[in-house]
Amino acid sequence: MLEIANLGDLFYLTLRQAYDAEKCIVEALPAMREASSSSELTHAFQTHLEETHLHVDRLLQIFEWLDKKAGTDTCHAAKGLVKDADDAVLLDLVGVDAPVKDAALIAAAQRVEHFEIAMYGTLRSWAVALDKPKIMEVLELTIEEEKNADTVLTAIAGTLNLRAAHTG
Amino acid sequence: MLEIANLGDLFYLTLRQAYDAEKCIVEALPAMREASSSSELTHAFQTHLEETHLHVDRLLQIFEWLDKKAGTDTCHAAKGLVKDADDAVLLDLVGVDAPVKDAALIAAAQRVEHFEIAMYGTLRSWAVALDKPKIMEVLELTIEEEKNADTVLTAIAGTLNLRAAHTG
Repeated sequence: MLEIANLGDLFYLTLRQAYDAEKCIVEALPAMREASSSSELTHAFQTHLEETHLHVDRLLQIFEWLDKKAGTDTCHAAKGLVKDADDAVLLDLVGVDAPVKDAALIAAAQRVEHFEIAMYGTLRSWAVALDKPKIMEVLELTIEEEKNADTVLTAIAGTLNLRAAHTG
Repeated sequence: MLEIANLGDLFYLTLRQAYDAEKCIVEALPAMREASSSSELTHAFQTHLEETHLHVDRLLQIFEWLDKKAGTDTCHAAKGLVKDADDAVLLDLVGVDAPVKDAALIAAAQRVEHFEIAMYGTLRSWAVALDKPKIMEVLELTIEEEKNADTVLTAIAGTLNLRAAHTG
């Protein structure tokens, strides 16, 4: 871990962990998309994969603005979240009924979204405290996309859960 | 992992993972409380530790209502979140200035809260789909406490971050 002497260091460390988290998520999303049966869910995962590439680009832009080297520090939470998502993907391979497996995929994805909303929410607050309005603005764009992805998943779950409850 | 044939099985598995997560959090919170310097933050961690014990009791009650054995399945996300929180606690041991270290502790705690809000939100939706109104009600209590804990931490961060920005 980096040496932390001030909030700027903590901000940089957390950006590096966010970069690690986004890389994990970019790797995990294609399998989640492939494992999903509902076309709405497949579409939601595809859209969010494209957004996640944007979030990575924004982090790289922030490193540049800060004149700091782009890189990662391990985000243990993201590793764990993705491992739980992998377990949901496995349900597809063992032939669990579609709505039940899709419900598991949505559950895993929403945990990732909520985690990211918290992580970027903290980064945004620190950007404000450190007087970095331009960085704050791009973090805000990512937060809005994460919140929107979560809302879309909640809407899909609304119909899927009832079907899942009458399956198996 | 348990065999999943229907939404009831997935509900039970996720309750077991929630039980694992709450146990991890009960273990992690005392060190976070001890590492915090702001008296407001220490108080918030203590209050949330007491609430977390309640959340454990509620899960045990739910297992009983379902007539299912209480137990845990590994929640990898919680393990990762707690590992990241441990790193924030370490900042105290290496003598990082109080407001900066407190900012790191709040960041870690808010990620845990958001993760739990997502996990319990999913459980609540599934309780509704499975027509378990009594279980839905107790899950709702836990969700409200998690959301409240998150709001309290945001309020504390509001003043702390500005102090942290002028430290070190």
